[in-house]
Amino acid sequence: MAAAARRIIRVADDFRLQRGGVLPEVDIAYEAWGRRNEHDNNTVLLFPGLSPSAHAASSPADPEPGWWEWMIGPGRPLDTDRYHVICVNPLGSCFGSTGPASLHPGTGRPWGSDFPELSIEDIARAAHELVKLLGIGRLHTVMGASLGGMVALSHTVEFPGAAERLVSLCAGMRAEPAAVALRSLQREMVCADPDWQGGHYAPGPGPRNGMRLARKLGLISYRSAAEWAERFGREEADLGDGAAPFTAGLQVESYLEANARRFVEGFDPNCYLYLSRAMDWFDAGDLAGTTVRRALVVGVETDTLFPLHQQRELAERLCELGRDVEFVAMPSLQGHDAFLVDRQRFAPVLRNFFGDELLCLDDERVSIRDCAAATG
Amino acid sequence: MAAAARRIIRVADDFRLQRGGVLPEVDIAYEAWGRRNEHDNNTVLLFPGLSPSAHAASSPADPEPGWWEWMIGPGRPLDTDRYHVICVNPLGSCFGSTGPASLHPGTGRPWGSDFPELSIEDIARAAHELVKLLGIGRLHTVMGASLGGMVALSHTVEFPGAAERLVSLCAGMRAEPAAVALRSLQREMVCADPDWQGGHYAPGPGPRNGMRLARKLGLISYRSAAEWAERFGREEADLGDGAAPFTAGLQVESYLEANARRFVEGFDPNCYLYLSRAMDWFDAGDLAGTTVRRALVVGVETDTLFPLHQQRELAERLCELGRDVEFVAMPSLQGHDAFLVDRQRFAPVLRNFFGDELLCLDDERVSIRDCAAATG
Repeated sequence: MAAAARRIIRVADDFRLQRGGVLPEVDIAYEAWGRRNEHDNNTVLLFPGLSPSAHAASSPADPEPGWWEWMIGPGRPLDTDRYHVICVNPLGSCFGSTGPASLHPGTGRPWGSDFPELSIEDIARAAHELVKLLGIGRLHTVMGASLGGMVALSHTVEFPGAAERLVSLCAGMRAEPAAVALRSLQREMVCADPDWQGGHYAPGPGPRNGMRLARKLGLISYRSAAEWAERFGREEADLGDGAAPFTAGLQVESYLEANARRFVEGFDPNCYLYLSRAMDWFDAGDLAGTTVRRALVVGVETDTLFPLHQQRELAERLCELGRDVEFVAMPSLQGHDAFLVDRQRFAPVLRNFFGDELLCLDDERVSIRDCAAATG
Repeated sequence: MAAAARRIIRVADDFRLQRGGVLPEVDIAYEAWGRRNEHDNNTVLLFPGLSPSAHAASSPADPEPGWWEWMIGPGRPLDTDRYHVICVNPLGSCFGSTGPASLHPGTGRPWGSDFPELSIEDIARAAHELVKLLGIGRLHTVMGASLGGMVALSHTVEFPGAAERLVSLCAGMRAEPAAVALRSLQREMVCADPDWQGGHYAPGPGPRNGMRLARKLGLISYRSAAEWAERFGREEADLGDGAAPFTAGLQVESYLEANARRFVEGFDPNCYLYLSRAMDWFDAGDLAGTTVRRALVVGVETDTLFPLHQQRELAERLCELGRDVEFVAMPSLQGHDAFLVDRQRFAPVLRNFFGDELLCLDDERVSIRDCAAATG
């Protein structure tokens, strides 16, 4: 199974959450690639989006391709010959980190909807605790896309000085009302499924039907109309006997159905609810606290979930704060998901950002050749 | 009640539908404003969108404001001192025309999901039968917005020569896959509600919960992210005790909930399913059959359901066919629904289109002043 490279660490007991709840214990699952150098200045902390695990890339311990396989590895844009990359499974998720699907230590049953209210700031803090426990000093970069971009941004605000650089892809300083509407409706679709049972379904299937519908809406918000027009046009498809009664028999419906069915097998519905709501609650404020020196902010013209003006707003705000900011607007067709699939556009931009130099802890700029020599 | 000005006419017996079904009887409900002139060249046939009734405007018989009150009436852009306007409730709807909520003459119970498969072409043809029965000759204009725009376009293709002009607002020659995805998912949300009962719920509530969710998704697709950002921002709202469990407590959610609750009271779920699917099936082809001489095609930059390039495509195609086409791209903030609410932009464009002249049946262009004199 794909968790062979995964490590899980108890990062806290009695972890107090931003909105008042307390978790008696917090485990965080992560994977790591590359090695820390002797300056301890080459660690990149990566936050995934809402649904993936920490398995962003393969490794000798787990050769299965990760969700960002083309981005992370030896010689790849995030080059693990030079960087030490840690990808965390967010607090609240279901791939090893503590979340609603974890067993409540007091009852031995899954938390379900008794899990306390979760915020993006909590996810950032749990990862920060992990980094401290691993004995890592200042991070070279904290980065993420989508929900992960919000967590990365929160991390730079909550822990000034903890990271030298920020990479934010297809994310923003807060959720806009149209994105809230989409996610809120997805959550309602899950909760409207009688099999949700108030958030206390038995381990196993749970509200599959609600999740299937919610995932379809998620997909609609993750891709772009232009991409689908090109990809599916008006192609018809035989949706089979199990098709919903009022489908139109078109290929786009068959694509959504197949993808949604796969998703339902792998993701816990309550985790989905908690992480999705955390995105809607998040508001990074005026970013005054962040101390990152350099930032890369990337948006996609066809992204309807985090539209391009949100990345521009973030880049402009960081500029106002005197940061060294690179802002890139991608003309990708694939909408919000472009960071996952538009390798041709994203790879060179990330390669360039990570390729030039390593910043050392004493704030002297050291060229990548020197640092590499120092670590032997 | 708002149906005081409504008339209902049996337009056909044994009405054969495009996809093979047969309706033993077809009633069409309509309202009319203004009077036919003696040239019989001033009738405008108007098709509403998916959800409104034929009550587009008030009249002495029914003073309640209609859904397009600012557009239709004496001195208004569609000036009923000069034009005879007929608005039909589409075949398949639930405001007087035959549809899935009508009683099956053989059983005395509602058709429900036994209603035969319905297409946009069927809706156009039922209205055409009505126009014939009313003894109206050539139409001055056939017009509509959204679903109504598809029906109007279909009417010009199916009945060449029947109309002199076409007005298509926020519509297109066919549904694009992203719009199909949105509508197909809405239908699935209705059918997933156990109260849908395979389409044979008892008259009355029916699948309210599914309809409420589907309406929310409809609203998301009808308005624009930019409008909501301006209107709701990050405002919080107390959603009350009945709120869904994982709402974020933001105003946009409260708006969606209130609107969706209102909608559920007024629209039959099966009618919604049939009309929505008809939109996804529709494909106007190459429009070679249409003979309209003049067309007004209006799109809205923020419309995500029928994006602007679809109106441009329609206008360009009509130009290729040698028609006299006016294409207007509106910068309205209100998305697909702009035709209903952006009076400032839509009123002058429609006033201009209907204001210049009346075309007489002998194809001579007669100025509006002459025609008005002729009708005394």
